[in-house]
Amino acid sequence: METSVSTAVLSAARAAKDAQPALARLHRAAKDRVLRAMAEALVAQAEQIVAANARDLAAADEAGIAPGLRDRLALDADRVAAIAEQLRDAAALPDPVGEVIRGSVLDNGLELREVRVPMGVIGMVYEARPNVTVDAAGLALKAGSAVVLRGGSAALHSNTALIGVLREVLAAHDLPEDLIIGIDAHGREGVDVLMRARGLVDVLIPRGGAGLIRRVVEHSLVPVIETGTGKTHVLVDASADLDQAVEIVANAKLQRIGVCNALETLLVHRDVAEQALPRLTAPLAEAGVRLHADETAAGILAAAGTTAEVVPATEEDWDTEYLALELAIAVVDDLDQALAHIRAHSTGHTESILTSDVRSQQRFLDEVDSAVVMANASTRFSDGGEFGFGAEIGISTQKLHARGPMGLQEITASKWLVVGQGHARP
Amino acid sequence: METSVSTAVLSAARAAKDAQPALARLHRAAKDRVLRAMAEALVAQAEQIVAANARDLAAADEAGIAPGLRDRLALDADRVAAIAEQLRDAAALPDPVGEVIRGSVLDNGLELREVRVPMGVIGMVYEARPNVTVDAAGLALKAGSAVVLRGGSAALHSNTALIGVLREVLAAHDLPEDLIIGIDAHGREGVDVLMRARGLVDVLIPRGGAGLIRRVVEHSLVPVIETGTGKTHVLVDASADLDQAVEIVANAKLQRIGVCNALETLLVHRDVAEQALPRLTAPLAEAGVRLHADETAAGILAAAGTTAEVVPATEEDWDTEYLALELAIAVVDDLDQALAHIRAHSTGHTESILTSDVRSQQRFLDEVDSAVVMANASTRFSDGGEFGFGAEIGISTQKLHARGPMGLQEITASKWLVVGQGHARP
Repeated sequence: METSVSTAVLSAARAAKDAQPALARLHRAAKDRVLRAMAEALVAQAEQIVAANARDLAAADEAGIAPGLRDRLALDADRVAAIAEQLRDAAALPDPVGEVIRGSVLDNGLELREVRVPMGVIGMVYEARPNVTVDAAGLALKAGSAVVLRGGSAALHSNTALIGVLREVLAAHDLPEDLIIGIDAHGREGVDVLMRARGLVDVLIPRGGAGLIRRVVEHSLVPVIETGTGKTHVLVDASADLDQAVEIVANAKLQRIGVCNALETLLVHRDVAEQALPRLTAPLAEAGVRLHADETAAGILAAAGTTAEVVPATEEDWDTEYLALELAIAVVDDLDQALAHIRAHSTGHTESILTSDVRSQQRFLDEVDSAVVMANASTRFSDGGEFGFGAEIGISTQKLHARGPMGLQEITASKWLVVGQGHARP
Repeated sequence: METSVSTAVLSAARAAKDAQPALARLHRAAKDRVLRAMAEALVAQAEQIVAANARDLAAADEAGIAPGLRDRLALDADRVAAIAEQLRDAAALPDPVGEVIRGSVLDNGLELREVRVPMGVIGMVYEARPNVTVDAAGLALKAGSAVVLRGGSAALHSNTALIGVLREVLAAHDLPEDLIIGIDAHGREGVDVLMRARGLVDVLIPRGGAGLIRRVVEHSLVPVIETGTGKTHVLVDASADLDQAVEIVANAKLQRIGVCNALETLLVHRDVAEQALPRLTAPLAEAGVRLHADETAAGILAAAGTTAEVVPATEEDWDTEYLALELAIAVVDDLDQALAHIRAHSTGHTESILTSDVRSQQRFLDEVDSAVVMANASTRFSDGGEFGFGAEIGISTQKLHARGPMGLQEITASKWLVVGQGHARP
């Protein structure tokens, strides 16, 4: 069925595919010049970008957007500058394209090299986070790929402004503008078309809520990298340093609430629950976090005269990514019970144990089957920027191709080069 | 819809998933012992295996199987020994699990490691090639994963015999037999169920004809690694060493005809076509290869009084993987035309240029967008065994996760370990 939307989106994907070879031929210095020029242009045009964002925010406020989502959507001059800085960070990174990943000379003299090559065309489907628009476009450019961006109708004006700035810079550098294409105007139907553009789009990266991810996984004919929701857990073990634990739990929950590596479920070992829970929750109570506590935790908090709002945890709480001033809390009998809880409820994003015991740390690192498994650190470090990737295109919660924060390497492909001198197989 | 097949296949997948942790805990020495014991058991029971294979062959002959497919299906004592040898090769390889892929200490002191972990449960759907059954099971075992195998009804008796031997060895080593499960008995419906077993099966690897691949790609909810058909090309450039070219073309076409890295289209540069074509095709004619030649090539061959059977090439020939004594031949004006032909008709598996010119070689290696791109070597080297992977689970023609021959590394996943000393994000 050829609709006007499918015509438009397929044309966009084809334009991106046709534009990509111009980028594949570009060496690092030229790509970095473009990235730095884009950063300058964003800062220079920050006022227009923030104005466009204000239109999105006004509409979002009218629609009663949740605080966490609003935080993801909002731009000001500082955030635009931070977004521009990420482009400069990307420029400062080595070019992934051309890297020899492995290589050897076989016994028969054949020279074998696995080299990194651009993916081709990357489709990004995400929710209203304008910074993702620029991150994705910048990283794709550095990695030699064109991008087709669908950033959520709530960010339409912001994304249009940002993509407009980036395309102007491409044109000013004699590059095809269609290396970066937005399809926000085509709504959800546009996503459906993009998912079936096999042969035009090489990989589709959905980034957002569980519903979006499920829809893409179920219907996409284009290979998908799933970037799941983050129902992240912190386990405060019996042997945890409590001062550190208080600081890390507050950091994981409060440092930025609307993001996928923010803490969503706190597990506390029974042996220290009575002593630890009042202290762990004090900074959270002060910040207005509502605690969804299991019976044991609620009892301890009540007995300690907590000032926090405590509500009984329901089964649903163990699987909810709040992205808000809400936290699920459970008391666990031991490490086994904590591991079982995580196995049952984790989305495979990030979990952290706070412990002083080497055996507990080892078991947690070995047995938790998540993209990022931590010890004695805040889940907020589960981030491409923090990992030194320069920027991040999402956090993969699948096992195939890329797992955890995805930077430049994760959005490239490879091919094998085999050079002989007349070799035939015996 | 719960049918008896879906109940059976989902139970099999669940059994594999439940069995896998026992394997994940096993260190290299123990896994290698099991692999070597499997190799011994296969050789010891070769007679029964060949007898089971004879039943499959008899049925296949009655159904009029194509020679290339029959060659893939057939086992004798030597081939069983060769299959067993691949298990010993796998045992001799380093354990991929636990490998630190990358690691660093971040500026803030956080220790970061990306480590290789087992994929979990691997589903293999392939066509009647009993050697794949053992390769896949052996490599999966070494890589810490359970396998669910669907090997094509034409190889039912062979696969049942092989899997039976392997499971006996697992049991003898106190390992769950369900680490290796065959679902051949459940036919095509079994494949449909397997494709929807998201959460039980971590990756599905279809290996076979275009129809099978398309069906899996379109319907699978489980992430897929596509192993496509091999419409492989060899380009004889104007500057090619003709003696070498004659040997390589014969090798690529004739060394084994029923496999995906066998030559299917020969491209010859116009400047040398008249001199080269009669020599290139002489060994092919002798072996009984039918040549599907374009007009120019046919004219040259006729003028040279070829003894080969020459038929006019149709449009379809440029896209056909014969897996038989058939070869498409085209004369091209120059490298550009050759690259365009390959771009239009390659399945992205393997292409090779035969040339003495560094610029032609460079352009071919750079611009051909296939999993394996060669110079002056036979396409038959595009193989995990030849690449030193020990054995091979298929040749990926997709860009995501793995591209080209897949060995142990390609069937593992990774996770990130982050160890701090009380780190909170500033």
